[in-house]
Amino acid sequence: MAPTTQAGAGTAGTRDRIVEAAAEGFARRGYAGTGLKAILGASHAPFGSLYHFFPGGKEELGAAAIRASGATYRELVEMFFPEGVDVVAATYDFFVGAAEVLVATDYADACPIATIALETASDSEPMRLASAEVFESWLEVLQQRLVEAGVNTATARDVAVELFCAIEGGFLHCRATRTTEALEIAGRAGVARVAGVLPSAP
Amino acid sequence: MAPTTQAGAGTAGTRDRIVEAAAEGFARRGYAGTGLKAILGASHAPFGSLYHFFPGGKEELGAAAIRASGATYRELVEMFFPEGVDVVAATYDFFVGAAEVLVATDYADACPIATIALETASDSEPMRLASAEVFESWLEVLQQRLVEAGVNTATARDVAVELFCAIEGGFLHCRATRTTEALEIAGRAGVARVAGVLPSAP
Repeated sequence: MAPTTQAGAGTAGTRDRIVEAAAEGFARRGYAGTGLKAILGASHAPFGSLYHFFPGGKEELGAAAIRASGATYRELVEMFFPEGVDVVAATYDFFVGAAEVLVATDYADACPIATIALETASDSEPMRLASAEVFESWLEVLQQRLVEAGVNTATARDVAVELFCAIEGGFLHCRATRTTEALEIAGRAGVARVAGVLPSAP
Repeated sequence: MAPTTQAGAGTAGTRDRIVEAAAEGFARRGYAGTGLKAILGASHAPFGSLYHFFPGGKEELGAAAIRASGATYRELVEMFFPEGVDVVAATYDFFVGAAEVLVATDYADACPIATIALETASDSEPMRLASAEVFESWLEVLQQRLVEAGVNTATARDVAVELFCAIEGGFLHCRATRTTEALEIAGRAGVARVAGVLPSAP
């Protein structure tokens, strides 16, 4: 019996709740540190529902949680970088916003998938591929906005990847030091870099 | 009975082996993913020795492993950035070397403490503080070499933090995608940035 045949409105809600609870646990305590029992408890789901929706077990749930977190974060990136945005101002706002969220959450909420991505990159192809897909989906937004702002495709790719690295590395430093120093420094550098590759105003 | 009174040459070797095995496990599989049993097995140490050397248990061992990995990696940074080095060439070599190690280890060996630092930043003050200390010890080397090359202290700090973020973010992207793209892009940008802040040659 295929999971989809049983997935009415009620069970679809259960699946979403499981994925949401898993994503939150993996983001905050990592993949190995978040047990299935805790996920089921947080999502008020019966044990059987886990293997009903995720026959591949925790690994399949892990990949689904990575994709779900990734899609939510992509929406955030799109909110900061909507079509037609001033990319320099948006870059500044994104780094400032990331630092503000860190402070507001006591340095807990940073990249939703960095921990699980590092934990699983060498051990699980399904989770590694999900992480790679998610990172690429974020890069696409940045790259696209830079191209629309007149930056050539190759440079837009470079700058998008540089911004990604700056933010991810900044998150790591900020969480460990409980300061916003790295995101401030990396943000200033990122803003200058974006401004530097834009074609001069007419 | 204080641990030090029992720690002769033999037991000191045991402590080092436990820390080494823990550091390797935490770097490869993360903190939660590496059990004490596996660590003791890998270090050929009896169970009692763990609590003898680390009365604080896994958390104390975690902090010791972070500091040990951090010290080894600092030596690597110092090897690439010895006193009097051409900092532009050293920056290039460091990014290239990091990418080569990734490829040679099937994308496993990157930052030795990034995974455990992210996993534990919100849950363990001793491990968070150890991570922060280690990151600062690496930044010190970069910052010092930049100052010796004639860069003012504030800019040297900025560039050191930017390079740190570029490498750490690059490691994350490279491990997830199993490509060296991000370290190549971030490395080119890092080299240009370092070259751009050096005082002009006389």
